[in-house]
Amino acid sequence: MQMIVHLGENSYPITIEEGAIHHIQDTIDTHRKIAIIADDKVPDQWVNIVADQCENAFVLRFPAGEGSKCFTQFEALLEQLADQEMTRKDAIIAIGGGVTGDLSGFVAASYMRGIDFYNIPTTVLSQVDSSVGGKVAIDMGSYKNIVGAFWQPKAVIIDPDVLTTLSSRQVNNGLVEALKTGLIQDPVLVDLFEKETLDLPQIITRSIDVKRKVVEADEKEAGLRKILNFGHTIGHAIESAYGLDTYLHGECVAMGMLFFIEDKALKDRVLKIYDRLDLPKVPDYSIDQLMHYIAHDKKSNRNSVTVVKVKSAGSYILEDLSFDQIRSRLERGPYEE
Amino acid sequence: MQMIVHLGENSYPITIEEGAIHHIQDTIDTHRKIAIIADDKVPDQWVNIVADQCENAFVLRFPAGEGSKCFTQFEALLEQLADQEMTRKDAIIAIGGGVTGDLSGFVAASYMRGIDFYNIPTTVLSQVDSSVGGKVAIDMGSYKNIVGAFWQPKAVIIDPDVLTTLSSRQVNNGLVEALKTGLIQDPVLVDLFEKETLDLPQIITRSIDVKRKVVEADEKEAGLRKILNFGHTIGHAIESAYGLDTYLHGECVAMGMLFFIEDKALKDRVLKIYDRLDLPKVPDYSIDQLMHYIAHDKKSNRNSVTVVKVKSAGSYILEDLSFDQIRSRLERGPYEE
Repeated sequence: MQMIVHLGENSYPITIEEGAIHHIQDTIDTHRKIAIIADDKVPDQWVNIVADQCENAFVLRFPAGEGSKCFTQFEALLEQLADQEMTRKDAIIAIGGGVTGDLSGFVAASYMRGIDFYNIPTTVLSQVDSSVGGKVAIDMGSYKNIVGAFWQPKAVIIDPDVLTTLSSRQVNNGLVEALKTGLIQDPVLVDLFEKETLDLPQIITRSIDVKRKVVEADEKEAGLRKILNFGHTIGHAIESAYGLDTYLHGECVAMGMLFFIEDKALKDRVLKIYDRLDLPKVPDYSIDQLMHYIAHDKKSNRNSVTVVKVKSAGSYILEDLSFDQIRSRLERGPYEE
Repeated sequence: MQMIVHLGENSYPITIEEGAIHHIQDTIDTHRKIAIIADDKVPDQWVNIVADQCENAFVLRFPAGEGSKCFTQFEALLEQLADQEMTRKDAIIAIGGGVTGDLSGFVAASYMRGIDFYNIPTTVLSQVDSSVGGKVAIDMGSYKNIVGAFWQPKAVIIDPDVLTTLSSRQVNNGLVEALKTGLIQDPVLVDLFEKETLDLPQIITRSIDVKRKVVEADEKEAGLRKILNFGHTIGHAIESAYGLDTYLHGECVAMGMLFFIEDKALKDRVLKIYDRLDLPKVPDYSIDQLMHYIAHDKKSNRNSVTVVKVKSAGSYILEDLSFDQIRSRLERGPYEE
């Protein structure tokens, strides 16, 4: 199936289909020079399938992991584009997860002030969420995503078949963002997590459809798009303080959501889903350390931050909390009301 | 006087007025944290006048010169914004020439995916041209402006009074871009260069007005905006090959224009103006070396480049030349027809 993200001149199609990576020409103009960017853990088989369909492609690999979202990699990739004499009319295809999309998307946004960018997500997390929306960035020191751009892809190709090479931990990590999407916007999506078997294509499709609508309503994150940050305020802080080597992004978001699910029955449901997904428990944390990162989050204001709360599946509450209020929420702990 | 650059939601005012830097609040919201970015040659007096009007400003200086349009400075400035806990709602004011505008504009475009950017140009070159249009970038090795963004300022404040601290070489260097603008779009502007005294405010106003119209018609340089590159194809190559320490940008553009003024009488007029502005002669050049840079210019296609030619003052011809044609134009030399 195909959806269109309607963003005026920045509109683009999303294909969600088993086997879709075998016919990328449906949405990608491959008759030009194409830089395929992937981390070193993306299996060759996926990269080769894509490269073989291009007239004139070369592959750039970088070390897997959040650590590659740095200035050094950003510059190294840009240099390789220049060395390959890429022009403004050429294009980048990212094949990989969120890190690949964020890093190569920012490279595409910046090379010659912006060239065409295509995203072929190969992790659940990027398939259900991060591949759509145009938020690209690198980190700076411990500040996540603090340097970047809004740069919409020209097309996104989501092929659930490529998920077969992932570990179950990676799959579950990614499913957290889909669950988040359900909690704020789509109760049916939450229900899918309680079925006997997890229907991945359906979860992906429903999740991306919510994401698409939110991005359409608010491309530059001026308002509504903030709801997608459910779980991320505290989640990012845990990730920055403890997570970059220990936890995956989705695992931290799962932790972060617990602080702002404000209904006991719903929290019990969510905790059961967490068990099913085998997610880690929230570790002991230093409140001062988390507050440091929260104060530096780019979504924070001078003395407050807008957080998303959920009382019933599918509907959100946006609330401006002072740093003192956040601090006392952290003092109560994730498992308390 | 004030003009508006009409670019939909990216529209912004340009103030051109002697003494304008004394009342920046007319167009800048100063009630927030403001990073004032200037190179170390911008006189303190201008920086202080601006800083004193801000509620909460801090000044970041960097070494003057094209060499600062590099990843190291880009990263250093971004780090200082983070250290100062700048948020998305805060702003940057650039005070300086083209280098300052390009570098701090790209910092503004990238910090937290984009914050407000104001430009107070203090050189003739930036006052007549580069401060308007939203093209921001840094260099990579010898590739000029190869990494950047389109990021429109929120306002531009042009105060001709600040030009009094410039050397005559700097003034003349900047006037080349105004002459270029006249040659492609405004014969009256060319005439101004032949009057007994040079009326700077009038030259600035007419030049910016042309630039504004061209940018309005083509914000992202998809078509018409290419005419502003008159003189830049070969000029940039000379600058990359010989100029970064020897010549100023405008001096190189002046050299580059000579190759594509296709009328003898007009070229004679222009050469007389060059004499008046005391511009350097075109040096001996290696054709191979210049061709290397032209082939890598981001405006080049795979085997050709669109150049701008002028046969009569105020009107341009856009022409796609193969690299072979450019090479034979270089063989004829700048002073031949």
